[in-house]
Amino acid sequence: MEIRIEKTKNPRQRPPVGDKSFGKYFTDHMFVMDYEDGKGWNSPAIVPYAPFQAEPAMMVFHYGQAVFEGLKAYKTDDGRILLFRPQKNFARLNASDERLCIPALDEEFVLKALIELIKIDADWIPTDENTALYIRPFVIATEPALGVHPSHTYKFMIILSPVGPYYAEGLNAVKIYVEDEYVRSVKGSIGFTKATANYAISLKGQEKAMQKGFTQVLWLDGVHRKYVEEVGTMNIFFKIGGKFVTPVLEGSILPGVTRDSVIQIAKSWGFEVEERKIEIGEIFKAYEDGTLEEIFGSGTAAVVSPVGELYWEGKTIVIGERKIGEYSQKLYDELTGIQYGRLEDRFGWTVEVR
Amino acid sequence: MEIRIEKTKNPRQRPPVGDKSFGKYFTDHMFVMDYEDGKGWNSPAIVPYAPFQAEPAMMVFHYGQAVFEGLKAYKTDDGRILLFRPQKNFARLNASDERLCIPALDEEFVLKALIELIKIDADWIPTDENTALYIRPFVIATEPALGVHPSHTYKFMIILSPVGPYYAEGLNAVKIYVEDEYVRSVKGSIGFTKATANYAISLKGQEKAMQKGFTQVLWLDGVHRKYVEEVGTMNIFFKIGGKFVTPVLEGSILPGVTRDSVIQIAKSWGFEVEERKIEIGEIFKAYEDGTLEEIFGSGTAAVVSPVGELYWEGKTIVIGERKIGEYSQKLYDELTGIQYGRLEDRFGWTVEVR
Repeated sequence: MEIRIEKTKNPRQRPPVGDKSFGKYFTDHMFVMDYEDGKGWNSPAIVPYAPFQAEPAMMVFHYGQAVFEGLKAYKTDDGRILLFRPQKNFARLNASDERLCIPALDEEFVLKALIELIKIDADWIPTDENTALYIRPFVIATEPALGVHPSHTYKFMIILSPVGPYYAEGLNAVKIYVEDEYVRSVKGSIGFTKATANYAISLKGQEKAMQKGFTQVLWLDGVHRKYVEEVGTMNIFFKIGGKFVTPVLEGSILPGVTRDSVIQIAKSWGFEVEERKIEIGEIFKAYEDGTLEEIFGSGTAAVVSPVGELYWEGKTIVIGERKIGEYSQKLYDELTGIQYGRLEDRFGWTVEVR
Repeated sequence: MEIRIEKTKNPRQRPPVGDKSFGKYFTDHMFVMDYEDGKGWNSPAIVPYAPFQAEPAMMVFHYGQAVFEGLKAYKTDDGRILLFRPQKNFARLNASDERLCIPALDEEFVLKALIELIKIDADWIPTDENTALYIRPFVIATEPALGVHPSHTYKFMIILSPVGPYYAEGLNAVKIYVEDEYVRSVKGSIGFTKATANYAISLKGQEKAMQKGFTQVLWLDGVHRKYVEEVGTMNIFFKIGGKFVTPVLEGSILPGVTRDSVIQIAKSWGFEVEERKIEIGEIFKAYEDGTLEEIFGSGTAAVVSPVGELYWEGKTIVIGERKIGEYSQKLYDELTGIQYGRLEDRFGWTVEVR
């Protein structure tokens, strides 16, 4: 398919200098493509970023049939533009599509479309430290109909947003509240997807944690209410007794691209990495035993985010005096080093936009 | 607040005669109202039904923050228009709002707005047997921002659609597949709300059931995978040994308005109604014992829908020779009798539009 390109005649306003808000500004262009039963995905185009006409009866408004991805484009010191493992994002988008009854996308084609789009808006990529161009591919159900069934039409879009660090804390340690009332997902549901539904479900727990003075929530499993799952916008890692430990993927947890990258890097350093069920009580016990060394979250938006405090059922543990741990820092440096082209890409993870 | 009214200059096309599709046609007008932090709900208006400008970054597309309701307006033989317990719907909408971090609506005001809207589009209410005007109030998050947090702006809308019976089967018994792989919700999640997320999650199980030749899916609980929860678009009732039995509301099941009405009617007839945990195995055992008398679903769209066949883990039971049961029929007659003004409204459930 040929991508129609229509350049903007009214360039959008750039973010104010120094404003590194996450996801509030959007670039001049976006990629759009439509789907219709019998016709398949069609009419790919790069067009000016702009509102579009939405039917009030559009199914995404009523039955939430929608999925998305999040990745970043990084500007290197020598002016190159790098994507980080974008194939993983589009593969996961299709995994989400499959679970949500949305027709699959051609992963190679949409990556090609993304690269074309970034080339056109390349001068929107910020170059300050820890900034990047956040990329949001998403699919929404567009059929105007109120019966509950998979939509017969969809819209796939990619929008771009210049961003700073996801958390205002930056690399400072965040405070995490272990949620024991609300549940994010459960085996058999859609926790492993980036369906919009998972985020709608998570809002209340996140709001509660913030009201109590925490940055984020750590979810426990919905069946036993004791196994660690993930943080609102990150996977979670523990360094205990010299090993890295992270919850195993069993259907309720997002298979993070950064999570996978952390595991590979830690293993390459000679560490043992255990993907297994982790009781929250085990973490508090490891703290008491003195074997809990570090806790950090991993995710595209925040990369690696050290956890300085964990609250669960009336108990608080403070990790590493609320400072970033040795390996949290090393992983952050290695990941961002590869992402910004400062370190050798020894895993072959980056894709250059050119 | 005063409701601004703008009448259409281009009346919409009416559904073709005899076309009783569910939720495919929309009336001439809709109600809209906006919300903004600090300003509250504002600018209520009845305007021509039309697409609106949607930002690609609008939060409903990314984090699924959206809730809805479903109710109906009925035309009586003597030309009056009745709503059925609409206060329950708006109370539930606010319960959904609360769980999804959406600001509450003024229930009295939106009911008043609905009544104004229906008066304007009154001649869209169909009068054929088993037809009605389906009413869809909904709220969507409209802030264009990609950080995961409750939106700071929202849109509340009410759209109207003339409809026939929800199931093509009408009052003929439907075939139900008891789902043992996928899960709809779990205690601690949002199963008790009409959040769009719950419907997104349910699509795959519904698709699977339909591919296997069933009309709908019956969900089991997400923890033990054995307690009956609800059907895709209905609550479920069993008549066993002369009693009505239905799953108790514990957070994962929708508190249906029709469910509540069925319970009240059955009790008024002198029946015992048990709201409790029900193992799916108990239903199959009651069938073998000969004590399983009837199964039916209850919901606004389908009213009462008899279940003629239930499939679970390789076993099929056929209920009442696939014909509607005595009390399924009586409940249907009583409910629709009240809704269409043919029977005395002995519970004070109807609200006349005038």
